Amino acid sequence: MTRTPKSDPGLKLRLVVAGGDWIGPGKADLLAGIAQTGSISAAGKRMGMSYKRAWGLVDVLNGMFHEPLVSASRGGAGHGGAELTETGQRVLALYRTMQAKADTTLAAEIAELVGLSVIPARK
Amino acid sequence: MTRTPKSDPGLKLRLVVAGGDWIGPGKADLLAGIAQTGSISAAGKRMGMSYKRAWGLVDVLNGMFHEPLVSASRGGAGHGGAELTETGQRVLALYRTMQAKADTTLAAEIAELVGLSVIPARK
Repeated sequence: MTRTPKSDPGLKLRLVVAGGDWIGPGKADLLAGIAQTGSISAAGKRMGMSYKRAWGLVDVLNGMFHEPLVSASRGGAGHGGAELTETGQRVLALYRTMQAKADTTLAAEIAELVGLSVIPARK
Repeated sequence: MTRTPKSDPGLKLRLVVAGGDWIGPGKADLLAGIAQTGSISAAGKRMGMSYKRAWGLVDVLNGMFHEPLVSASRGGAGHGGAELTETGQRVLALYRTMQAKADTTLAAEIAELVGLSVIPARK
């Protein structure tokens, strides 16, 4: 999983969809983590998120699109396994494509802006 | 000024610079408003911001780069006039260029993601 801590210099994309919800680096990383670990709580834990917060974000993501992005069972025989649906895989792939294209297309502007910036003195 | 309310569908760019601060749609719109109105408080007011919040954001912006982005005088003969410095004009132009390039380059992905999304039912 490509973690993108909020404080790392670089471009972060937030796509606001119908209704005002959005997908950004955090939700994209959570989806990627679920695909890799097969578990919502494990994916959240890797990002320093509580079980409750990770499930809450999945609920938001599932409500944002025509089809749910994550298919999950709470406990039971499957021990709470989770996976991305076809729509979930598509949404994550689209987000990653956008990020890669933006990083390439905007490389000159990003470099100039970061070059103009300074690390602030601690107060 | 091109206002970009947070809830409008579309792509929002946040560029994180050295030290973890960032420039996004809000700070860019504030800079544009200062350039247009010649006043920090007037620019903030148009965005529904308090005087204190607008000045606070300008302080953050001025501390983020090698040169201040906004040159301002509090009251006095100039009646608190403010303008963008050369660096401020450059930073705003770079941000607007990034947004325009991203909207063009990523148009297909943005349209597909927004098309997959739904307006959530009110609970």
